[in-house]
Amino acid sequence: MIVHENERLDELNNLKIIQNPKGFCYGTDAVILANFSKAMRGEVVVDFCTGTGAVPLLMVQKTKAEKFFGIEILPEVYDMAKRSVELNNLMDKITIINDNIINAPEIFKGKTVDVVTCNPPYMNQGGGFQNGDEAIKAARHEVFCTIEDVILSASKILRFGGRLYLIHKCERLCDIFVYMRKYNLEPKKLQYVIPKINKAPNLVLIEGMKGAKPYLHTLPPLVIYNEDNTYTKEYLEFICERG
Amino acid sequence: MIVHENERLDELNNLKIIQNPKGFCYGTDAVILANFSKAMRGEVVVDFCTGTGAVPLLMVQKTKAEKFFGIEILPEVYDMAKRSVELNNLMDKITIINDNIINAPEIFKGKTVDVVTCNPPYMNQGGGFQNGDEAIKAARHEVFCTIEDVILSASKILRFGGRLYLIHKCERLCDIFVYMRKYNLEPKKLQYVIPKINKAPNLVLIEGMKGAKPYLHTLPPLVIYNEDNTYTKEYLEFICERG
Repeated sequence: MIVHENERLDELNNLKIIQNPKGFCYGTDAVILANFSKAMRGEVVVDFCTGTGAVPLLMVQKTKAEKFFGIEILPEVYDMAKRSVELNNLMDKITIINDNIINAPEIFKGKTVDVVTCNPPYMNQGGGFQNGDEAIKAARHEVFCTIEDVILSASKILRFGGRLYLIHKCERLCDIFVYMRKYNLEPKKLQYVIPKINKAPNLVLIEGMKGAKPYLHTLPPLVIYNEDNTYTKEYLEFICERG
Repeated sequence: MIVHENERLDELNNLKIIQNPKGFCYGTDAVILANFSKAMRGEVVVDFCTGTGAVPLLMVQKTKAEKFFGIEILPEVYDMAKRSVELNNLMDKITIINDNIINAPEIFKGKTVDVVTCNPPYMNQGGGFQNGDEAIKAARHEVFCTIEDVILSASKILRFGGRLYLIHKCERLCDIFVYMRKYNLEPKKLQYVIPKINKAPNLVLIEGMKGAKPYLHTLPPLVIYNEDNTYTKEYLEFICERG
């Protein structure tokens, strides 16, 4: 049996994704990132810190990209992602790699890719309450890689004109912009995610382009819930869009 | 007569502000910046690129700050601001200085101040269509100072813990963050200005604090107009707030 005893099989857009309710689960953030990220016909996409592989699994449906790689450092989470790819019979489109994203230049042996996506750990080292479970800790805290590592590693493997798509907490925006500028990934598109109308944003989506000139295009904020806790029309349209 | 023939006298919150309809006029941006900027009892505030002095004139009403300085490089615009201060009988509270903000450290002879506000020229040198009128050109383009000059000069005169309040076009946010980090003015607060509900933001308000630790607090966006072109409730509250 491909799904283990402690695991749960979730269905999303006709996809089957293996989750571990007591360990690592993908969240709305991965769904939002997969819908914000664009990939053209024939492009190669690498998802850093892929977790259970939700971003490449969703992007296979939503884009015409040729090939996806997902990099996950934790062996047991890597294994869940790999089995989800098998369950959905997408082994020709998605390859899950068990490694640290810091090693991406070696993994791709100096070849460049078109797109990098990343829903990285949000807390900086030492920040916030640290959960005891290793998988949850690694997903939330910068245990194995920092936001600087993510941006540097993405810049190293992206072709000139290639894009990095990130989702992160709003409070880290200055860090992200400073590192993007430092590593020649110019921020080109920004969209705030607002949990409920009239509230403050909690997440921010950013597109950086390698070697691009400075000009940041700011999109209307994406509001998730109406006052009555139903999804907003724009969120439903956003998650249905095909890139 | 204190108001010249080619000029117009505008009234705003019981203030009289001299404008030149064919030259430089203050706009909504100055009103928004004056309401976003906080100054405590007894503090000293310097407004860079003060134009007709709208920001210090409004902040005198809205805060308990002790003293305001406005720096304006163009002699004819400086003169308008100075006459507006006289018209409102605020010479003891506001001093207008005819100089380039680059010289702020010399103007204040190495003394530090508590707050700097700035509604700077939005276009970078060479960007956009350049209007022939010198005053309008200087207000819109980085003719006499760049955003880097504004941030560096503010950092030089601010005390440790002092604040810089800026309003700028969204597309320059990465530049602003990079220079703030470079010159030790950490971005602490950010608020987008959205002209109309469901539209993209066009302006952004930023508070930077000298020597502060990184953590950016993002406020709910400020929407100016309802669908029917009336002001929104939150904008009317925003411009009525007292700091």
